[in-house]
Amino acid sequence: TEEEIMIRDSFCTYCQEKLMPRILMANRNEHFHREILNEMGELGVLGPTIQGYGCAGTSYVAYGLIAREVERVDSGYRSVMSVQSSLVMHPINAYGTEAQKQKYLPKLARGEILGCFGLTEPNHGSDPGGMETKAKYNPSSRTYTISGAKTWITNSPYADICVVWAKCEDGRVRGFVLERGMEGLSTPKIEGKFSLRASATGMILMDEVEVPEENLLPHVSGLAGPFGCLNNARYGIAWGALGAAEFCFHAARQYTLDRIQFGVPLARNQLIQKKMADMLTEITIGLQHTPEMISMLKRNSCGKALDIARQARDMLGGNGIADEYHIIRHVMNLEAVNTYEGTHDIHALILGRAITGLQSFTVGK
Amino acid sequence: TEEEIMIRDSFCTYCQEKLMPRILMANRNEHFHREILNEMGELGVLGPTIQGYGCAGTSYVAYGLIAREVERVDSGYRSVMSVQSSLVMHPINAYGTEAQKQKYLPKLARGEILGCFGLTEPNHGSDPGGMETKAKYNPSSRTYTISGAKTWITNSPYADICVVWAKCEDGRVRGFVLERGMEGLSTPKIEGKFSLRASATGMILMDEVEVPEENLLPHVSGLAGPFGCLNNARYGIAWGALGAAEFCFHAARQYTLDRIQFGVPLARNQLIQKKMADMLTEITIGLQHTPEMISMLKRNSCGKALDIARQARDMLGGNGIADEYHIIRHVMNLEAVNTYEGTHDIHALILGRAITGLQSFTVGK
Amino acid sequence: TEEEIMIRDSFCTYCQEKLMPRILMANRNEHFHREILNEMGELGVLGPTIQGYGCAGTSYVAYGLIAREVERVDSGYRSVMSVQSSLVMHPINAYGTEAQKQKYLPKLARGEILGCFGLTEPNHGSDPGGMETKAKYNPSSRTYTISGAKTWITNSPYADICVVWAKCEDGRVRGFVLERGMEGLSTPKIEGKFSLRASATGMILMDEVEVPEENLLPHVSGLAGPFGCLNNARYGIAWGALGAAEFCFHAARQYTLDRIQFGVPLARNQLIQKKMADMLTEITIGLQHTPEMISMLKRNSCGKALDIARQARDMLGGNGIADEYHIIRHVMNLEAVNTYEGTHDIHALILGRAITGLQSFTVGK
Amino acid sequence: TEEEIMIRDSFCTYCQEKLMPRILMANRNEHFHREILNEMGELGVLGPTIQGYGCAGTSYVAYGLIAREVERVDSGYRSVMSVQSSLVMHPINAYGTEAQKQKYLPKLARGEILGCFGLTEPNHGSDPGGMETKAKYNPSSRTYTISGAKTWITNSPYADICVVWAKCEDGRVRGFVLERGMEGLSTPKIEGKFSLRASATGMILMDEVEVPEENLLPHVSGLAGPFGCLNNARYGIAWGALGAAEFCFHAARQYTLDRIQFGVPLARNQLIQKKMADMLTEITIGLQHTPEMISMLKRNSCGKALDIARQARDMLGGNGIADEYHIIRHVMNLEAVNTYEGTHDIHALILGRAITGLQSFTVGK
Repeated sequence: TEEEIMIRDSFCTYCQEKLMPRILMANRNEHFHREILNEMGELGVLGPTIQGYGCAGTSYVAYGLIAREVERVDSGYRSVMSVQSSLVMHPINAYGTEAQKQKYLPKLARGEILGCFGLTEPNHGSDPGGMETKAKYNPSSRTYTISGAKTWITNSPYADICVVWAKCEDGRVRGFVLERGMEGLSTPKIEGKFSLRASATGMILMDEVEVPEENLLPHVSGLAGPFGCLNNARYGIAWGALGAAEFCFHAARQYTLDRIQFGVPLARNQLIQKKMADMLTEITIGLQHTPEMISMLKRNSCGKALDIARQARDMLGGNGIADEYHIIRHVMNLEAVNTYEGTHDIHALILGRAITGLQSFTVGK
Repeated sequence: TEEEIMIRDSFCTYCQEKLMPRILMANRNEHFHREILNEMGELGVLGPTIQGYGCAGTSYVAYGLIAREVERVDSGYRSVMSVQSSLVMHPINAYGTEAQKQKYLPKLARGEILGCFGLTEPNHGSDPGGMETKAKYNPSSRTYTISGAKTWITNSPYADICVVWAKCEDGRVRGFVLERGMEGLSTPKIEGKFSLRASATGMILMDEVEVPEENLLPHVSGLAGPFGCLNNARYGIAWGALGAAEFCFHAARQYTLDRIQFGVPLARNQLIQKKMADMLTEITIGLQHTPEMISMLKRNSCGKALDIARQARDMLGGNGIADEYHIIRHVMNLEAVNTYEGTHDIHALILGRAITGLQSFTVGK
Repeated sequence: TEEEIMIRDSFCTYCQEKLMPRILMANRNEHFHREILNEMGELGVLGPTIQGYGCAGTSYVAYGLIAREVERVDSGYRSVMSVQSSLVMHPINAYGTEAQKQKYLPKLARGEILGCFGLTEPNHGSDPGGMETKAKYNPSSRTYTISGAKTWITNSPYADICVVWAKCEDGRVRGFVLERGMEGLSTPKIEGKFSLRASATGMILMDEVEVPEENLLPHVSGLAGPFGCLNNARYGIAWGALGAAEFCFHAARQYTLDRIQFGVPLARNQLIQKKMADMLTEITIGLQHTPEMISMLKRNSCGKALDIARQARDMLGGNGIADEYHIIRHVMNLEAVNTYEGTHDIHALILGRAITGLQSFTVGK
Repeated sequence: TEEEIMIRDSFCTYCQEKLMPRILMANRNEHFHREILNEMGELGVLGPTIQGYGCAGTSYVAYGLIAREVERVDSGYRSVMSVQSSLVMHPINAYGTEAQKQKYLPKLARGEILGCFGLTEPNHGSDPGGMETKAKYNPSSRTYTISGAKTWITNSPYADICVVWAKCEDGRVRGFVLERGMEGLSTPKIEGKFSLRASATGMILMDEVEVPEENLLPHVSGLAGPFGCLNNARYGIAWGALGAAEFCFHAARQYTLDRIQFGVPLARNQLIQKKMADMLTEITIGLQHTPEMISMLKRNSCGKALDIARQARDMLGGNGIADEYHIIRHVMNLEAVNTYEGTHDIHALILGRAITGLQSFTVGK
């Protein structure tokens, strides 16, 4: 639609003109520019597939195109956006009450407040079924008392609200919206991260945080809740990772066309041309997505994008490790992207189960 | 369309019911069943995209689907069909006179006569520009005298007509239709082939063969002629190779579900499931073709199909080398498919030239 | 030592002058030349590490060198030799009585009789612990009655004796020497093998075969018996596979030096040179074996040799599938070599268990 | 020898006790600890293969073992040491005058002064033959005037002396020892490096630097000079890279043994065990070096070490990107190690030339 095209085009310009100049130092200094959320909010790209509540109501393809444009700049920026859109706004919209939607969605859509998503725990990465965070209902105060720790949480150090998944007394997992300032809630930053440095990552520590019952997301229970969010996010990741790969491909192509060795451009060499043929083939074929089989797409796009970025790094020789050429940054970023929201291997086993009807995650039959 | 669906469905049934039972011994004994051409002719799948002259006039997607079904059985059978359709009927239809079309196309469409395509020479595989076969015009007899040798020619030992490419006195390459029985023409078979054994491969030896000028294909000159044919064929190959890969995937899946080791189906193992996840991902993504960028698709489909067939071979353990499980046959076939009509590496350099604007085939700049 | 050098040199000459000319048609026609055993016997290369009983008593390195020379010609010939030496003569020598040694070893060393080794069963490949073949002791006749089926047995169709492993009534696995002609024993050939075609492979079917107790190998019980034999064989396989890889490397090198395309030898191309650099690196590093860690070496040599042979096949283009260039034969052979005596994946899990102390073969903890 | 063992053991202890605790923050903050040179000097590991001049006079194997121990901690530290030993002390010892040796070697051996090696230029990486740095002799002052720029020079920002290679008026490349403080000499640091961050990298800018003729290294001319140094260094790199790989292997092994998912250690999974089996195989086989074929070894060790580090990164999941687990640092380092002193591809072409007798570096025949 015309609106979609307008959103995408202005967003593409924004990414190249406004984000690209900031990313070099942001990544070098491990600095998160909080204000980009407000800028993205103005462009209407936060929670873009949601209808109403100040959201753009675009198609999923448009969401994919947005993710691809922003990740062409940096996977960290796309991660910030994916979390806000798919992991915070989506569950509030899909599982929340009308009051919750009205309270949070417009502010999240404008980037006025930042959200994070608490699922992964220190001892439970690929198996959220082992979740240790507990929520206990207090009938007298009509509140839940939540205790536990979440880790590797994108945005948490700066988040205003946290969508946190906890196990209730009936053994079912449910989602809650926690707000910064609640007693017992802290969000320490993880330092020394060599991937996605332009985004902030931290923990969510909850020591008997008392959460009003109106902050429960009532319309879902069980792991279907967080998994629905992840699926939503994966669609954006699958597109986004190829955006990073495209940047690396184009940068390596230009570099090897410009650099003369042994009297000809590096790009004149068969070994270089073969690498580029492989890279472009995987990108082209990978972009021909359909939304079904998201697990397959996430895994394929992320794995291939990482391979492509590594090839591009190699093609730049010594310059490939200097951040001003940007490729080493994409390499580092894609390591995390390949791992989060389902590692490469876990997605293999998810697909394997779909193919065979047999689970091979655990040691039992 | 309804007609397409009918063609495809009856063809799928034919492949499984009529071809599958014959292929085991045909491959084991290196035997070409000439009569399958007549059978295919009855089903309307020869030269299917051609309008008129007894041809079905289907879309290119239908052509791709036909190639996929037949190659699910055997790449050799698909090769026979590709040659007849894309390398013999296509050039006559695209570059021939009305008289040539009326003379040859209906018989070729019915499988009554079999054709072959002579481009590759003993000393010139990936560089047809070096062609040594010569055609000399004799004004008195209004004939061309053609001398030279072509090799690795699918169908040649049984072919009734040969579309042969030769260099004329003006240095331009032109196509001619040679007929079996012309003096000086012989088509010896290549023995001991361990790939595509169900099809026949040979040479075309031309020792001063005198060809009437009405057998010249008048509407093309230069390498654009044979390259146009190859491009046409590659589209079918790209689909077909994935058909072979699909067979291997399904066979390996079933085998590992059925075979119990250490008390569980082999398919219960992570190492097996990862292989299948990789296989299915490549097949699924590879099938999302568009007809543009044929060079990329041919290379990707064939390379990935060979990888998949090798993985499947490995998954069957010892049984993987027995022809009755069919997979070793696909492995052997796909070696040739990966090489012919542009090797994997040559397609990398074709793509590389498109990406960079720089050729790296030759040593000159 | 001087003797070793003499054995090796005369053996190398024998392989190139006597075996190489026979292999093309033997492989094409799936024909086993039984007489090569007698020839090898004369050269002293059967059971060469055994002291006495007509055996040469060489070092293990000499055994490795012999395997490399014969597999440079064909993995099928090396398989025949490995079975005779490591899987038949070795267990008789290591686990047999003095009488058994005197009865069988000299004839086996001369190649006068041929042996085979029955461990793998139709339902039990990688997990011999599930063995179904049973041996029941009959005190009256002082015989064992053995029933069961073994499959994928190299040499069985032509073997004079079979070293068969069976589960006794106490649940322990023990070895027996069966002789052709015993009632209830048959050794049908497996047809349609597209790997190791110059050797014969079959089954050992035992329908209440009565075996005298003096044919029991008394000095071992449990899986340590057959595993000791396999370990002995793997050392030869690790060397042998690299011999096949060396042949492929040299053949591809020569072919690409001789073949001119685009005005220069194929070997002038970067893509070709990179393949050869990779091939030679793996061969060179792989040859620096020490006898420890045989599981690692078998897996590495076989996996890398298969990769190398596939690369060589690709480098020969169309000619790569013709048996007269020999490489397609090595490709087919190495598929089996990679699988037998421990598949590539099973050796990964054996190593994995050694590394971690945790087994991951079965679903239990 | 006893001395070698003593050196190695005390060095191993030093690396783990003194270097390991400093590396985390050094890498995080891109900080070079200059004082480690003095510490290494005390341990006798600088220029260790040199006889006399305060050097230890060890074997090359001892040199390799030293490189492996230090790179187990960090490739940046090994790089600093390799430059000092192989690229500064070695050329002075091999190509210098007695006076030069006495002046520089003892101080370099003690780590009192730090050296760097200037060969690579901004426009000439893999083809030093295109060198643009010029040295012009001034007979009156008996000096050389040197102008040009060198880049990607390890140690340059802190170096006291620079071994610089320049093209003389006769077109021959010669080596010179430049000292910090000479007019026209500057050594700016390259910022924003995401590899080898614990070492300093910079340029050597020479604007008409006047160098006394006694600073010429008289005993070599042509590219044999710098290439001899690189060959010397590559031996250490080949060992060192495997040290980094060993660290990654052990760290990943321990991590996956400790981390419980789905009720068992991660190390219980087949996918994990296969990765470790592959890693250990490559390390074990790679360590079986002989000093010949250094080009092959450098390429193999560095390429495989990078693969291993990437696998280890993946095995740590999210923690794999945190610097406190050290593996992401090794991944980043090995990107540079794989590129410097001959990229992976250039070494393929060097080997290719050795195999075929045909160069494929340039476009000419």
